[in-house]
Amino acid sequence: MSQKETVTIEALEARVSQIFEKIGALRDVADCLAHVIVAGERDHCAAHGLYRIEGCLRTIKAGQVKPDVEPALMSSDGAIVKVDAKMGFSNPAFAFGLPLLVEKAREFGLAAMVIQDCTHFSALWHETEAIAAHGLAGLAMCPSYATVAPFGGNAPLLGTNPLAFGWPRPNKDPYVFDFATSMAARGEIELYNRAGKPLPQGWGIDKDGKETTDPAAVLEGSMLPFGTHKGSAISTMIELLAGAMIGDLTSPEALEALGTTTLAPHHGELILALDPIKFSAGRTDNPFERAEMMLDAIAGQGARLPSQRRFAARKQTLAEGISLDENQLALLAKFEEKGLDGVSL
Amino acid sequence: MSQKETVTIEALEARVSQIFEKIGALRDVADCLAHVIVAGERDHCAAHGLYRIEGCLRTIKAGQVKPDVEPALMSSDGAIVKVDAKMGFSNPAFAFGLPLLVEKAREFGLAAMVIQDCTHFSALWHETEAIAAHGLAGLAMCPSYATVAPFGGNAPLLGTNPLAFGWPRPNKDPYVFDFATSMAARGEIELYNRAGKPLPQGWGIDKDGKETTDPAAVLEGSMLPFGTHKGSAISTMIELLAGAMIGDLTSPEALEALGTTTLAPHHGELILALDPIKFSAGRTDNPFERAEMMLDAIAGQGARLPSQRRFAARKQTLAEGISLDENQLALLAKFEEKGLDGVSL
Repeated sequence: MSQKETVTIEALEARVSQIFEKIGALRDVADCLAHVIVAGERDHCAAHGLYRIEGCLRTIKAGQVKPDVEPALMSSDGAIVKVDAKMGFSNPAFAFGLPLLVEKAREFGLAAMVIQDCTHFSALWHETEAIAAHGLAGLAMCPSYATVAPFGGNAPLLGTNPLAFGWPRPNKDPYVFDFATSMAARGEIELYNRAGKPLPQGWGIDKDGKETTDPAAVLEGSMLPFGTHKGSAISTMIELLAGAMIGDLTSPEALEALGTTTLAPHHGELILALDPIKFSAGRTDNPFERAEMMLDAIAGQGARLPSQRRFAARKQTLAEGISLDENQLALLAKFEEKGLDGVSL
Repeated sequence: MSQKETVTIEALEARVSQIFEKIGALRDVADCLAHVIVAGERDHCAAHGLYRIEGCLRTIKAGQVKPDVEPALMSSDGAIVKVDAKMGFSNPAFAFGLPLLVEKAREFGLAAMVIQDCTHFSALWHETEAIAAHGLAGLAMCPSYATVAPFGGNAPLLGTNPLAFGWPRPNKDPYVFDFATSMAARGEIELYNRAGKPLPQGWGIDKDGKETTDPAAVLEGSMLPFGTHKGSAISTMIELLAGAMIGDLTSPEALEALGTTTLAPHHGELILALDPIKFSAGRTDNPFERAEMMLDAIAGQGARLPSQRRFAARKQTLAEGISLDENQLALLAKFEEKGLDGVSL
């Protein structure tokens, strides 16, 4: 019989935070990483859960991200907040900059946070949910590694470049989406490869630029953007805005700088916050009530709103705790015992 | 032998402007509409060219848009410029607000223009190209009519909701995209229907929510978003930001208010402008130069950048003029002679 253990979110956060603190992370950094990682488990997103500890530790061990730096305010000019992650993780930098972003969005109607020189490993819904929790709409985007060919191209150039959005819903979970602008995440292609199964059509091309459903050929070649030329254009926009415009690495530069996709990528991040109260000023209707009509109509068709499954899992977890299986317990025990020696480069 | 005539852009703008002035449009409004419509011909986008005169006139005749109103500044608070289109066309309202949007983007780093109570019939690349011409990045979006089912849904709710982006390229045409967030424009489905040809897979569903390639069934049913759940999420975001948030009509509300898709829709528009100089402040690299590396790499793969075909057509037109065929000449002559009597409701 396999061992199982049910733990509270808080208890698991404390355990994960300890792992990072023990290998030299600042307390705030460790807590922030633990919060993000445990939120993945809480929402039943295994791919963003405890599994991520290993990648974080590996990137730290490789010297590509610093766990012992405090983010700092680089500048606060007009409606732009710039946070210097100082070669640390993006998550503590975002948490550090959020109060000022919110303040500026309320003051100016909209505002931007730029995170510079960070390493990014987590989903972007953390950012847009956090912004929505302040009653603001949020947009977040960042480059990744060059693993995706532009539409009509033949070699990796774009990243999987996630785009996330959040809209606050009164007394409800926010409307939140967060997706890769590639057809699939690289990890999904790896799963097909391990299972020896062909990919769905349109996911990738081989190293000669020819369409293929062979996952191994795609891993050697390129993934493709979602939505053909439209997704490709959006992904390119993310390279321009959250790479070139903010003076941080684009996806081909990030891959060149690191030389591998097995460590978390180093780049920047762009986050926008918009205040519906300011945007609706002078109009009679309440923007949040009108949004509910739209969202209720979507749900009324039986269409699932993005993140609904995640919020349902969260509700369950908050009531019942997080159930850890044998492998997860072994993984925690290994990193608790061995720290950075538990990962190989 | 069919009659043909080659005219300059300026001469054609003057003719089209005259048509609108004669039926009561203010001079500035007429010039603005003519500029936008002739720009469609200039760029060889027939669907946004002279063909649009009829829709504009029909919407005016139906009393759904006012050609004789001047846009006015509603408010200028923080980084948000609000322009009241006063039930007129969006184009003069955008032209009116643009200088202040640019000024605010330069001052705050980013800014937004909200156009309220407008009728919209044109492509959004006009907006993002105009912003890029000032050295700024631009994003524009608006709802439409409820003709698209959300992913997983079964009835029209979202509009074809266009999304446009522009990035300035030194001494080059800007990087510009502008597309419907539906798989296709409604006009394309109508063309398949007239030709009696089946649609490509995934373009639409019938009135019972079942996937179909029958264009007539899709016209009675719903179009589908591009990129499955991802495009659907982006389209929903446009309803929230450029509908509910700004206090203007969402796509189902716009359809309900007008009761038909044969007239141009009435709603609002949201435009963002970002200043790369402000966003890259404190970094060593020039954002425009770094963007060129990315865009050149895309083009270097033989992939076409969005709008390239349009810019090539424009170059040709600027050198050779606009060639009008028999039908176009007849259309101009009809509206010059008959004005609003040339269209039936």
